[in-house]
Amino acid sequence: MKNEKHLSVVRHSLSHIMALALQRLYSEVKFGVGPATDDGFYYDVEISQSKSINQDNLPRIEKEMKKIIKEHLPFKKKNISLTEAVKLFKKLDQPYKLELLRDLKKYGTTDPQEILDIKNKKKKAKAVKTVSIYQVGDFIDLCRGPHVKNTKDIPLGFKLVKLAGAYWRGKENNPMLQRIKGVAFESEKKLKDFLYKQEEAAKRDHRVLGKKLQLFTISDDIGPGLILWFPRGAILKKTVEDYILREYLHNGYQLVNTPHIAKLNLWRISGHLGFYRENMFPAMHLKEINKEEKDDYQLKPMNCPFHILIYKDQIRSYNDLPIRYTELGTVYRYEKSGTLHGLTRVRGFTQDDAHIWCTIEQLDKELKDLLHFALRILRDFGFRDYDIYVSTRPEKYVGSLTNWRKATRALKEALKEAKVDYKIDKGGGVFYGPKIDIKIKDSLGRPWQCTTIQVDFNLPERFDMSYIDSKGKKQRPVMIHRALLGSVERFLGVLIENYAGAFPLWLSPVQVAILPIKEQHEKYGEKIAQELSKNNIRFELWPAKETLSKRIRLAEIQKIPYVIIIGDKEKKGKTIAVRERGKGDKGSQRLDSFIKQLQQIIQKKKK
Amino acid sequence: MKNEKHLSVVRHSLSHIMALALQRLYSEVKFGVGPATDDGFYYDVEISQSKSINQDNLPRIEKEMKKIIKEHLPFKKKNISLTEAVKLFKKLDQPYKLELLRDLKKYGTTDPQEILDIKNKKKKAKAVKTVSIYQVGDFIDLCRGPHVKNTKDIPLGFKLVKLAGAYWRGKENNPMLQRIKGVAFESEKKLKDFLYKQEEAAKRDHRVLGKKLQLFTISDDIGPGLILWFPRGAILKKTVEDYILREYLHNGYQLVNTPHIAKLNLWRISGHLGFYRENMFPAMHLKEINKEEKDDYQLKPMNCPFHILIYKDQIRSYNDLPIRYTELGTVYRYEKSGTLHGLTRVRGFTQDDAHIWCTIEQLDKELKDLLHFALRILRDFGFRDYDIYVSTRPEKYVGSLTNWRKATRALKEALKEAKVDYKIDKGGGVFYGPKIDIKIKDSLGRPWQCTTIQVDFNLPERFDMSYIDSKGKKQRPVMIHRALLGSVERFLGVLIENYAGAFPLWLSPVQVAILPIKEQHEKYGEKIAQELSKNNIRFELWPAKETLSKRIRLAEIQKIPYVIIIGDKEKKGKTIAVRERGKGDKGSQRLDSFIKQLQQIIQKKKK
Repeated sequence: MKNEKHLSVVRHSLSHIMALALQRLYSEVKFGVGPATDDGFYYDVEISQSKSINQDNLPRIEKEMKKIIKEHLPFKKKNISLTEAVKLFKKLDQPYKLELLRDLKKYGTTDPQEILDIKNKKKKAKAVKTVSIYQVGDFIDLCRGPHVKNTKDIPLGFKLVKLAGAYWRGKENNPMLQRIKGVAFESEKKLKDFLYKQEEAAKRDHRVLGKKLQLFTISDDIGPGLILWFPRGAILKKTVEDYILREYLHNGYQLVNTPHIAKLNLWRISGHLGFYRENMFPAMHLKEINKEEKDDYQLKPMNCPFHILIYKDQIRSYNDLPIRYTELGTVYRYEKSGTLHGLTRVRGFTQDDAHIWCTIEQLDKELKDLLHFALRILRDFGFRDYDIYVSTRPEKYVGSLTNWRKATRALKEALKEAKVDYKIDKGGGVFYGPKIDIKIKDSLGRPWQCTTIQVDFNLPERFDMSYIDSKGKKQRPVMIHRALLGSVERFLGVLIENYAGAFPLWLSPVQVAILPIKEQHEKYGEKIAQELSKNNIRFELWPAKETLSKRIRLAEIQKIPYVIIIGDKEKKGKTIAVRERGKGDKGSQRLDSFIKQLQQIIQKKKK
Repeated sequence: MKNEKHLSVVRHSLSHIMALALQRLYSEVKFGVGPATDDGFYYDVEISQSKSINQDNLPRIEKEMKKIIKEHLPFKKKNISLTEAVKLFKKLDQPYKLELLRDLKKYGTTDPQEILDIKNKKKKAKAVKTVSIYQVGDFIDLCRGPHVKNTKDIPLGFKLVKLAGAYWRGKENNPMLQRIKGVAFESEKKLKDFLYKQEEAAKRDHRVLGKKLQLFTISDDIGPGLILWFPRGAILKKTVEDYILREYLHNGYQLVNTPHIAKLNLWRISGHLGFYRENMFPAMHLKEINKEEKDDYQLKPMNCPFHILIYKDQIRSYNDLPIRYTELGTVYRYEKSGTLHGLTRVRGFTQDDAHIWCTIEQLDKELKDLLHFALRILRDFGFRDYDIYVSTRPEKYVGSLTNWRKATRALKEALKEAKVDYKIDKGGGVFYGPKIDIKIKDSLGRPWQCTTIQVDFNLPERFDMSYIDSKGKKQRPVMIHRALLGSVERFLGVLIENYAGAFPLWLSPVQVAILPIKEQHEKYGEKIAQELSKNNIRFELWPAKETLSKRIRLAEIQKIPYVIIIGDKEKKGKTIAVRERGKGDKGSQRLDSFIKQLQQIIQKKKK
């Protein structure tokens, strides 16, 4: 936290240093405001049009800033009266600063929202008599500070990155100033890291790659936040879903399958109509199409009530527990269209959902196994770094204190045994039980919400769920909600960005492209295609209509892991020439040994 | 048709013969009506309470009927005046016949609907002066006929099957009569076949088996026509879906994946709002939850518009065609709750849907391949008998006559080449194109609507779909809708009834039950379980808490194909004792050879 604060001071000081540089380079600069930001600083300025700044001028300004830093100029603070300040900035010919001073005099603040509140008599104006000014070199600013003591205290990890228009004080009727933005960090190395990550993140944007790799689209005719998966994206999704479902079925989960709609009343029983209404799509009123029908139907935002009804269809004994039901359940949640983002924030998505019911005594082992299982799954997808949070009991809660304690301890114990670090989000749990959230970190170190393991004392109560214990008595089971990938759509978005679209072989929608050099090699290509098909290798056969080099280039753009090239030599020798993504020509091979290699790599899920 | 008519006469005559038998056996019988039905006949009668008939009396009545047939009694017809008829039935003391005569006099009809129309002055009463009566033995009936000439003309293929209450003329305020129902066919053999099939059908009812085999349920909390699949049913469904999808992906189809909702306007473009509205769920009005939202959203009744939008996302060339998109798309259609039936008529179901776009020149080959493919799929599920219909152009249609002719001929050619019989449903096509419907016949010979192959000239037009031909000109593709299983839910219903729940091994939800004789054998059971799991054999391990015989019996009830029994001998010898469904004890085996056998059977999809 201390470092963060210091960095913010450095960034703010850099905006003054930039102002000084501008003043030196452009005689007539009028200054607006120049604060620190989350990753740097900016200054809004007005420079006479004939000299207005363009992107090409930024290096020159940056050079001047570095010169100023080497000049070891002190930052000098002075408190002066408002009257003196007005005099000073008149002399400096700074109209925007004078406007700020006018506001200070009238309202005691320069903050637009506060000024509005005072105008609307929600707040009272404060009396301001003195203000502080900061001077560095010849540049004097109206400023609260704080700043570094001397320009020599500024590390060189900064860069001017962007020039943009900005209305004075954000109002459209005000003059348009030029905003010069810089990024700044503790060191040149950290700056370099940041710039690299920014560049990489832009290249990896899953919305851009989704188009380029022909994975998915979002159509205005369907609606925002609803994904249309193209063939390659649909296969990618299916590959992930098949994998996760196979893992579940081999690890004690039972598959169930439930509808996407149910009577609205179900959500009244579950309580969602109370605390989740705003995320639910509007109900369907059957009476609109048939007057005799009375029920409203609801598109499901969650799978839990359906799984609960399956549990409740039979009398359950302690011998049957734990019961684990899983479903790749597609749910629909209403989100404002402004908050939607590619695959990572959508209105319709598939959860790798499961619900577990067990006795409170079984909770410990169940959670340990579950966490162990979850981390193995995440590793299979290449994720080894996490931010993990345990959210504990909030002020308002349901369930007994004893059970909360048992469950919270069980969650922590599971994490300790798995030897992973975690943070406590004290009181941050939902009212119905404590939970673990796992944010996976992608190859750029960015965290993404993924796995949730949530204990629930509420729904078993609301649905009056029970099991018969060893003494023949009815007991309430404990319920766990868990999704390891979370939303499959979001997880795919993360995968795309993590791998920049160059998926490991087992996930690649097209694993092999077959390129016959000329038309006369296409028949041999079809034979190879048949062999790959038999061995469940995903391939595409690209006919010789396009030139070979064009097709090789296309395979590179589409980040296809392997390319098989076949011409006279290969046809005659019954071999194939192989190119590997990122490695180029791998020489001539026999098809069967190539297939074996691929199967081994797929098995290991490594490359 | 002639035979059908004759059979109906026989059935009607049987109701008179039954009446005569009743008159002989019970002195005071009052007769209501006694018509022929689709599979036999009935008579509604009133017998003084002390003597009222019960199920045990039916054989005696049947015996008397057979006696009457052997007596070779003639059916005598006579036309008499209404007045004479009233006199006659007064004498015979038949109050219900007198009521009918009163109606005949007043309205000229005995039909309740016609009488109502006359009362409401929608129709005029006809004047009736004479009526016909039929006499067989001592039994005289008011009857239009016709009848057989003599009781000797009646084949012995009949049986009295049911006794039920029936209000006189169907009105609740009228007296309750006894309805004695019989079934009747051309021969005793045909009767036997019918009775066997009825018995079998009852045993095979998929709603009953669905409960017994723990496959699925329909919950009132969710809503009618919406299926909750239990673990065993969900695995059955997944097995069928995995199989069909694998077949599609290996046969030139590309997977796509689309949402379950879209803006209502999409269905305006597609035209469904015009001709399919009544089968669509009511729309969701987003403004109900957010005033700023203007769009209505619609739960999808079909997948086609989504697939079309994916096609349209790119410019397509003739080189790209045919394009085949497939999706296991879950759709929702509104049906009146009274028409719903188990899995075979539901409100939500998964289609093994696909859409194909091709040039009109490619249509021939495409349909031939498709039909060939469809019949192979159906054979894999054990269906080898079909009723096939080609529906041709109706009076109102879209598309050119030439294209209709080409497409209809292509459908017929495909059927001819596949060497399967088909019938023409002349003019029975939908307005947008000709189609093939395949009804599969189950093991009882009952037909079930299954595969549809539908040419569509409409949607490519409405969505302005195109491809670029070899000359660089825009052309309209032809579209084919096709679902081979149709609704996966209905198909599963048919599978359950076809196999009476005793699924072939590859479809069985639980392929093997492992029964350790005592608790000390359970560990060995777990080892076996691990091996089966590794080899993707679906199993359940049933602990020794229940007695062995109870568990064997349960496996039989649940129709599990194989049971592995393990005790001291097996544990020591590292073997397993195997029981096969319907065959009993198969002796001791090695686990690995057992697994190999199973894999071979699964591969062949035979047993």
